[in-house]
Amino acid sequence: MNHCLEAGGKHTEPRHFRLMMACAEICRVSAHFMLLNTPHHKHTCKECAEICTECADNCARIGGMDDCVARCRDCAKSCAAMAG
Amino acid sequence: MNHCLEAGGKHTEPRHFRLMMACAEICRVSAHFMLLNTPHHKHTCKECAEICTECADNCARIGGMDDCVARCRDCAKSCAAMAG
Amino acid sequence: MNHCLEAGGKHTEPRHFRLMMACAEICRVSAHFMLLNTPHHKHTCKECAEICTECADNCARIGGMDDCVARCRDCAKSCAAMAG
Amino acid sequence: MNHCLEAGGKHTEPRHFRLMMACAEICRVSAHFMLLNTPHHKHTCKECAEICTECADNCARIGGMDDCVARCRDCAKSCAAMAG
Repeated sequence: MNHCLEAGGKHTEPRHFRLMMACAEICRVSAHFMLLNTPHHKHTCKECAEICTECADNCARIGGMDDCVARCRDCAKSCAAMAG
Repeated sequence: MNHCLEAGGKHTEPRHFRLMMACAEICRVSAHFMLLNTPHHKHTCKECAEICTECADNCARIGGMDDCVARCRDCAKSCAAMAG
Repeated sequence: MNHCLEAGGKHTEPRHFRLMMACAEICRVSAHFMLLNTPHHKHTCKECAEICTECADNCARIGGMDDCVARCRDCAKSCAAMAG
Repeated sequence: MNHCLEAGGKHTEPRHFRLMMACAEICRVSAHFMLLNTPHHKHTCKECAEICTECADNCARIGGMDDCVARCRDCAKSCAAMAG
């Protein structure tokens, strides 16, 4: 998010930035639910995988964020595995 | 949670307390997603309705927490409505 | 934040947007600490008052956000009172 | 927290459990503030160091949680360094 804030332009377009903020939030929640050891972590991880994938697609569309794209795809994969 | 921590006994049994912590967390997240105006709020609200209902049922089972049961049911209803 | 994301320009300049995100986060945390009834809420509320004041000043500087300025000032006042 | 919930007894006494929940929360917030790159991270890290130290002392007092004590002391040290 810091990169995008500094870059501006397409990087701070509402759809993209909102998605990144949602992504950061759902990742935190999923981690928290796993630590809590609640069975509901499967649902938050499923949602996390979905949002991470959408975030990766959107970062790829805007361009110049290959690292972010790769991280989001990795995260989506791990979350999908946790969601079972 | 303060009431249950002070009451102890069945009020701090793992299943119950874990559920309450998950409930507090998913409520915060759903509120955050609604403020963010991300379409994913429908998913977190759906999950929130589910956890709130489970929390209400569990508070009812343990007993002596009619207020909490009522609040959780109200919250579950609002969240289910938001989930569309 | 939705307003600023849609408005763009000065509204998404890094310093301003970062401050708003920090403000939203510290408000959530302070509310959580008050609900938890931990004595540390005094410290998070003190920090919250400080960030809200800075956020109000910055919103006033950018302009066109009188509502936000008023809300941040109110929040800063309540938080300062809680910080004791 | 999972260990303490399962262990019960002194592990779920209000003072201890409240402290652990506050500790988990302030750690999340401090990490978020560092990622946001807001200068206010110094204040949340200072608070985090304080809460982690209190949490370590309390875990040591209750006993049987040497791992937790060590982690909290490490975290307190890192946070104090970040707080500058």
